[in-house]
Amino acid sequence: MDVSEFFPIWSQLTNEEQNALNKAAVTTTIPAGTILHDGIGSCRGLYLVKTGQLRAYILSDKGREVTLYRLFPWDICLFTASCMMRSIQFNIIIEVEKSCEVINIPAGTYQGIMEGSAVLANYTNQIMASRFSEVMWLVEQIMWSSFDKRLASFLINESRIDDSRSLVITHDKIANHLGTAREVVTRMLKYFQSEGLVKLTRGTIELLSIEERYPEE
Amino acid sequence: MDVSEFFPIWSQLTNEEQNALNKAAVTTTIPAGTILHDGIGSCRGLYLVKTGQLRAYILSDKGREVTLYRLFPWDICLFTASCMMRSIQFNIIIEVEKSCEVINIPAGTYQGIMEGSAVLANYTNQIMASRFSEVMWLVEQIMWSSFDKRLASFLINESRIDDSRSLVITHDKIANHLGTAREVVTRMLKYFQSEGLVKLTRGTIELLSIEERYPEE
Repeated sequence: MDVSEFFPIWSQLTNEEQNALNKAAVTTTIPAGTILHDGIGSCRGLYLVKTGQLRAYILSDKGREVTLYRLFPWDICLFTASCMMRSIQFNIIIEVEKSCEVINIPAGTYQGIMEGSAVLANYTNQIMASRFSEVMWLVEQIMWSSFDKRLASFLINESRIDDSRSLVITHDKIANHLGTAREVVTRMLKYFQSEGLVKLTRGTIELLSIEERYPEE
Repeated sequence: MDVSEFFPIWSQLTNEEQNALNKAAVTTTIPAGTILHDGIGSCRGLYLVKTGQLRAYILSDKGREVTLYRLFPWDICLFTASCMMRSIQFNIIIEVEKSCEVINIPAGTYQGIMEGSAVLANYTNQIMASRFSEVMWLVEQIMWSSFDKRLASFLINESRIDDSRSLVITHDKIANHLGTAREVVTRMLKYFQSEGLVKLTRGTIELLSIEERYPEE
């Protein structure tokens, strides 16, 4: 996985542009828990995810979190370079959720190339449109989905990401992901358990027939 | 107000690009209530707002709406041309809220120019980033909405104290009262105004229907 493989439009870039991107790219390994970006002012550049997992979230005054989206291998993290986009007027936090190998490209280099390359600018536009779509999905979930559906779809999605029926996650963490209180999560999980949809044991949530009750729409 | 005035980067476009945009532009008047865009599949092109007001919103299965943002004179409506951005995967509805005069540019023409112009592509990126920021602001309001309630109840209370629907108070003072920054107050007041809850004039805030939206608890 080198830089070129992250950009489907690579062959449309000039040799100079390709060389500039390659030259600026630095491959590095970052441990889980690292904060790559903590809002306006932070600007480490783009991260191309080779392995591991990033999480983008927002944080309230009172320390409540809401997960916006995740980035997986083959994804490009754009908002760690948000300084190159003046019109980004919101604070987003990007953390390394599972330790990862990434390729970092400084924002200045990327911006310089993008300013001269319609191909790269249009592709960057597509990346932003994808993230925008993920956030819009979240807005719809928050506005129109009852909490039981949001929690079920969170559990099913986590199970897919981890490729496991047994999730090791605290109720507190789930509450952070979904922007609610721990008590609300615990209560709903207990309801799920009473319905035979999950089985709760100390520190883990085992998925039973939850997909039958909450099929994907 | 012609096409060039909507694009701060106009002088950086080539003569050919300027001519192509001018040639494709059609000025038209559209009555209030018209739906310009009703989700994926719809693609009338960009609208440059000369007068009037557009509203972007989403709609649930059950017919509930949420306003995402509004567009006013000098704004460019991008999502009515969402077909030119493959990665836009959400349904948004754009309606004419106050009858308006607009300049329409077909999506195909615009896309064609943008694909060859880094300047236009980067500018388009800025427009999308602005809308993204507005939606993120909305997400924060929805998730931890205490501030709008606090501000509304402050205004209602002041109005009672003064026995007046017209408050003479600076945004700075309100910020001091509520322990926040002036910018936060200004932004929220503008949102209230866009929702028709208050009317802002130099130095005063006139309360309209704010009590209906924020009844006492």
